[in-house]
Amino acid sequence: MKRTAFFVSDGTGITAETLGHSMLSQFRGVEFAQVTLPYVQSRETTENAVARINETAVRDGQRPVVFSTLVDEEHRAMLGQCQGLVLDMFAAFVGPLESELGVRSSHTVGETHAIRDHEAYRIRIDAVHYALDNDDGARTRHYDKADVILVGVSRSGKTPTCLYLALQFGLYAANYPLTEDDFDDLRLPQSLMPHKDKIFGLTIDPDRLAAIRSERKAGSKYASPRQCDMEVRALEALFNKFNIPSLNATELSIEEISTRILAKTGIQRRLQ
Amino acid sequence: MKRTAFFVSDGTGITAETLGHSMLSQFRGVEFAQVTLPYVQSRETTENAVARINETAVRDGQRPVVFSTLVDEEHRAMLGQCQGLVLDMFAAFVGPLESELGVRSSHTVGETHAIRDHEAYRIRIDAVHYALDNDDGARTRHYDKADVILVGVSRSGKTPTCLYLALQFGLYAANYPLTEDDFDDLRLPQSLMPHKDKIFGLTIDPDRLAAIRSERKAGSKYASPRQCDMEVRALEALFNKFNIPSLNATELSIEEISTRILAKTGIQRRLQ
Repeated sequence: MKRTAFFVSDGTGITAETLGHSMLSQFRGVEFAQVTLPYVQSRETTENAVARINETAVRDGQRPVVFSTLVDEEHRAMLGQCQGLVLDMFAAFVGPLESELGVRSSHTVGETHAIRDHEAYRIRIDAVHYALDNDDGARTRHYDKADVILVGVSRSGKTPTCLYLALQFGLYAANYPLTEDDFDDLRLPQSLMPHKDKIFGLTIDPDRLAAIRSERKAGSKYASPRQCDMEVRALEALFNKFNIPSLNATELSIEEISTRILAKTGIQRRLQ
Repeated sequence: MKRTAFFVSDGTGITAETLGHSMLSQFRGVEFAQVTLPYVQSRETTENAVARINETAVRDGQRPVVFSTLVDEEHRAMLGQCQGLVLDMFAAFVGPLESELGVRSSHTVGETHAIRDHEAYRIRIDAVHYALDNDDGARTRHYDKADVILVGVSRSGKTPTCLYLALQFGLYAANYPLTEDDFDDLRLPQSLMPHKDKIFGLTIDPDRLAAIRSERKAGSKYASPRQCDMEVRALEALFNKFNIPSLNATELSIEEISTRILAKTGIQRRLQ
């Protein structure tokens, strides 16, 4: 029998989901249907949320689990009356913070993901466009502006990582695919040499690489275990030769790759 | 005098940061220096974290605020001894969850952003590449596969929104820029007509659009208030004529635009 988890928020719901996913990941044995209720900012939307939770409690025959980041006191009290287990982030943490800081919290609704700082927003959008313009070695003349240049073989996760670094941290991340030509004489491409200190390498297990490539071009030389094995060996030899910091991305999510790059290199994020 | 906020995690630190940012956004009057300590997974790294927090307490002359998502009991106890106000997410929520669910939590470290499901991961990466391949009207022949097609004038936030929808929700999001040609006779481009039900419009205040465009091409016709005003009026007339749901993105973050699109359209995310 499935449980239902609700993520209730007066904003996007992203904080409630992040908190909730983190908690639910500690209970893998229990299966949860997940429902996000964002923009709960009025008595009416709060009443609707409570009604939805109560109907689910009846349908499931079990209390839903409710992760709430609601800020408004009246709405939190209303939600507290629902037929679910309410885990109230505001109640848990704002009290101790108010005491510590000696100030009342603003109780402002929908704050977490609002644009507060147009300059920070501009950096973020600019970083996304930088990642797009400098994807896959398409251009190399803007590497002066790069915070990091990811190198690796085709389909090792460079592009999604660059986009995540841009969106999450406002970093200017370029990427450059290394190919057989580069491996032949074990050298770095000319365009990368002046920026050697910004290079970070992604490597991947040859088996996994072959599986990923096969989804795109089954039966091709490009996807063959032999080719993948050769490319990865040569890549790692290159990283060794030029002392390039690197990471095996095989079992890592985009978030893990991105945050490990920051931890390993000490690159400072441009957005908090 | 600045306070310092620490985000301490046995994984990427993203949950701790999200929780912390959400709480700190309720105390805008207080300025915080922010430090993320990810991958705290051993006695040694926990000791280092405690030492760092204690040094900061001395330097600041004020207790740091510590948002922790550590799971391991021993490490949490060690962190609890530091000279900061520790806000422990695990302590606050796992107890009530264990009682409610009637099972012990797994206490597994680094779970939140780990890859658990290779199929979900494949969808996510595939969605990112879809957004790239179908950005800015570059291709229109894959619109059958789209979950949503964003339309709007140049520089209204379509591209970052598509990438966010892909990374966060695994959605296949294309975007198509509407230009003067389309406005002349107030019609939708041929390539969009068969997919009218997937179209979502982004609009923007003409003043803001002119400011954004001026950063790229100052003094151009493209960035002129007159041109921006004309384009936005025509765009909104088009949305009206074809009954296209839309959103004014001027004061919204990428997260807000993305989650409001889901809320307005009822599109189901492909990733939880």
